[in-house]
Amino acid sequence: MRFLVIGGDAAGLSAASQIRRRRKEDEIVVLEKKSYVSYGLCGLPFFIRGDIEKTDELISKPKEFFERERKINILTEHEAIEIRREKKVVVARDKKTGNFRELPYDKLIIATGARPFLPEIEGLNLEGVFTLHSLEEGEEIREYLKRDDVKRVALVGAGYVNLELVDAMRAYGKKVLIIEMLDRLLFPMHDEFGNILLEELKSAGVEVELGKRLERIEGEKKVEKVIAGGKTYEVEMVVASLGVIPNSELAKEAGLSLTVKNAIKVDSRMKTSDPDIFAAGDCIGYHHLLKKEPAFLPLGDLANKSGVVAGENAAGGYYELPPVLGTQGTEVLGIEIARTGLTLKEALDEGYEAHSTFIKSSSRAHYMPGRKPLWINIVYTRDGKLLGAESMGYEGVMLRINAISMLIAKGGTVYELAFSDFVYVPPHSPVWDPLQQAGRVALKTLEKLSPSHTSP
Amino acid sequence: MRFLVIGGDAAGLSAASQIRRRRKEDEIVVLEKKSYVSYGLCGLPFFIRGDIEKTDELISKPKEFFERERKINILTEHEAIEIRREKKVVVARDKKTGNFRELPYDKLIIATGARPFLPEIEGLNLEGVFTLHSLEEGEEIREYLKRDDVKRVALVGAGYVNLELVDAMRAYGKKVLIIEMLDRLLFPMHDEFGNILLEELKSAGVEVELGKRLERIEGEKKVEKVIAGGKTYEVEMVVASLGVIPNSELAKEAGLSLTVKNAIKVDSRMKTSDPDIFAAGDCIGYHHLLKKEPAFLPLGDLANKSGVVAGENAAGGYYELPPVLGTQGTEVLGIEIARTGLTLKEALDEGYEAHSTFIKSSSRAHYMPGRKPLWINIVYTRDGKLLGAESMGYEGVMLRINAISMLIAKGGTVYELAFSDFVYVPPHSPVWDPLQQAGRVALKTLEKLSPSHTSP
Repeated sequence: MRFLVIGGDAAGLSAASQIRRRRKEDEIVVLEKKSYVSYGLCGLPFFIRGDIEKTDELISKPKEFFERERKINILTEHEAIEIRREKKVVVARDKKTGNFRELPYDKLIIATGARPFLPEIEGLNLEGVFTLHSLEEGEEIREYLKRDDVKRVALVGAGYVNLELVDAMRAYGKKVLIIEMLDRLLFPMHDEFGNILLEELKSAGVEVELGKRLERIEGEKKVEKVIAGGKTYEVEMVVASLGVIPNSELAKEAGLSLTVKNAIKVDSRMKTSDPDIFAAGDCIGYHHLLKKEPAFLPLGDLANKSGVVAGENAAGGYYELPPVLGTQGTEVLGIEIARTGLTLKEALDEGYEAHSTFIKSSSRAHYMPGRKPLWINIVYTRDGKLLGAESMGYEGVMLRINAISMLIAKGGTVYELAFSDFVYVPPHSPVWDPLQQAGRVALKTLEKLSPSHTSP
Repeated sequence: MRFLVIGGDAAGLSAASQIRRRRKEDEIVVLEKKSYVSYGLCGLPFFIRGDIEKTDELISKPKEFFERERKINILTEHEAIEIRREKKVVVARDKKTGNFRELPYDKLIIATGARPFLPEIEGLNLEGVFTLHSLEEGEEIREYLKRDDVKRVALVGAGYVNLELVDAMRAYGKKVLIIEMLDRLLFPMHDEFGNILLEELKSAGVEVELGKRLERIEGEKKVEKVIAGGKTYEVEMVVASLGVIPNSELAKEAGLSLTVKNAIKVDSRMKTSDPDIFAAGDCIGYHHLLKKEPAFLPLGDLANKSGVVAGENAAGGYYELPPVLGTQGTEVLGIEIARTGLTLKEALDEGYEAHSTFIKSSSRAHYMPGRKPLWINIVYTRDGKLLGAESMGYEGVMLRINAISMLIAKGGTVYELAFSDFVYVPPHSPVWDPLQQAGRVALKTLEKLSPSHTSP
């Protein structure tokens, strides 16, 4: 069997490695258009901030490791141009020579990732305008931040990556201006999270302009001004993070089915509409446990997981990726922000008769020094079934969201959350953990809604 | 209706408060033999260490709060002497006057807690010998640690509380000697945890003597020597934590059924063998999800939860406490240690065909500064059903055990653990969280055991 993988990042190399586990002798070829493989894109804001010295460190394993240890043939600087399904070949261009070659496959894995979305506006090609979606861009941003003539940076789009970049900008002593199209931060999370974050950003001296759509960027050669929502802001640098879109053109031109946001449609085994072609990572639509439609979720951990599942199945095994919950998080100014499942708005949009409970709690027992506020919102049906959770705070937020993600994945209830069996050690949680407190308050809400209803 | 509660700590006051939620007008009386109520015993090691200034801070709410806000009549310094079930009264002694009185009840809740176990050996009454099970003892230990003539302290029994006391002793500049009867630390957790902890304790200058049973304590008036396992250790202070036993004598004398370790037998609603008497907290045996017999688990969080359940049911509602997993943890030298469910030894003893997977992982992405080692052992059946998890490390241990506790509670598998949907932010976990890594390694073990078996 000949296995061919398009894409040499998390999903592609997870797939290739998993194939090798099952198939000791078969040929495995990976096409990667860049000159390196297996890099951690999620680490870039922390690299820029200075936590990590070189982008090399973000590479989890070098090309040579995969070639030597896993006998995977990696063709870097090779761009896949066309999938010819009738011949079962992929046409690739060697970027160094410009030559084209046909690579045959028995099983193909598409792991082409995603790319930043950019609106069609003027000024995007000015010096000092960046997106952040590759190691090179990370290095360029970090270099640019070292310039003394860069005083104020506009982060356009208040998504998770740009929030992580706030600290990076501040580490270089820059003034930070966040420009967000929507009229609030962290939408569609509970409004309170956005309100709290807004206050925190302002207190730290970060300017935030809400409800301002990016119109154009102006400058002689370099960025001088950003125009958004009719207002003009003088800045010397712009990082635009306006979302990403799947690299699904190859799949589409080959006649494979697409789904939401033009992501590649796959089943729970990562199989596309062609049984010999699998897809994984940021280019696919994931089955969501609580949504009718697949979800486009370009997240590093899902890329790894879907890659393993695609590889296992391509190699003749049987793995299913459990439906996802869109669990994700970010960190800014030392504040952890995370969510899993549906927000109240999303739950109502999906047709659930949903309710939510927002509480402020504490990260440690009431008498422990160093305790910090921790806010949680949980979303649930009238029957008490958990649909989602969002949290914000200064410690223990991410891992608490993981705990409730487990419960939601297993169809758990508000009652089970309230009476869950957690570790209690005073420096790590109150005797009723914030999650359990939220469960108890939600339980009271449900009891009021259906007084005759007994729990559990 | 008249509600009577024996015991004014976590379980008793949780019960009383829950009764008040349902019963706005009924009489609720709480008997407490001490002069104060609602204290956080779990905070005592941190109070002694100096994290907390006064024991007052450990009291979650004062007596007056319950009396004023919740209309609960609290009789402190009143000791329950006898339960007369045929008359539905409890005989109590007023410790200040020495007088006896009969208190009638329609529904009674026994929340008498537990007390330290002490073997019948010589020297326990010497000055400088302590147990730690009340605010007074906490204060006495802290005062005693201020003495300059106390150079070396023996912590007898290497249980969770004594481990937490290591830091407290060191905060006062004392030499610490741990004397443990068993030949390893942290039994019955995976041996590696004990080995790692032993090395850490030794590196920090803490002496550890394993396999030494306490024989006697010697001294003129004050402690001078501890004799254990035939060896003599010169110390000026001893804290003995050799486990606790339930205060179930009242229940037993009233003819109520007991269970393991003489704990009071209750059903999932905390009802005893008498339908008008409920019990909660450290005096009961908890139904364990994975064990045939109830478990004696004197843990603060379970006391709160069982108290709420007992109160709800006594008041005419319907709550069940979900079967517990014995989730618990401790902290020593900045090392977090926690467990949930069964260890391999316990699983085998219970008759499961169990396997386990021990891994060393990292608390953060491989490139993040400040990442720390994190060890996990997971226990599972041949079919991949999770039975338990233990973990140790320097950050994120407790909350990770909470996450897997959720999954175990819901009957989850190794496969679901491996592909669980977690937050990935590089300063908070590797892209495959340590829990997921453990799941993946376990999956390989299972695939080797049953090569034909496909997952999930």
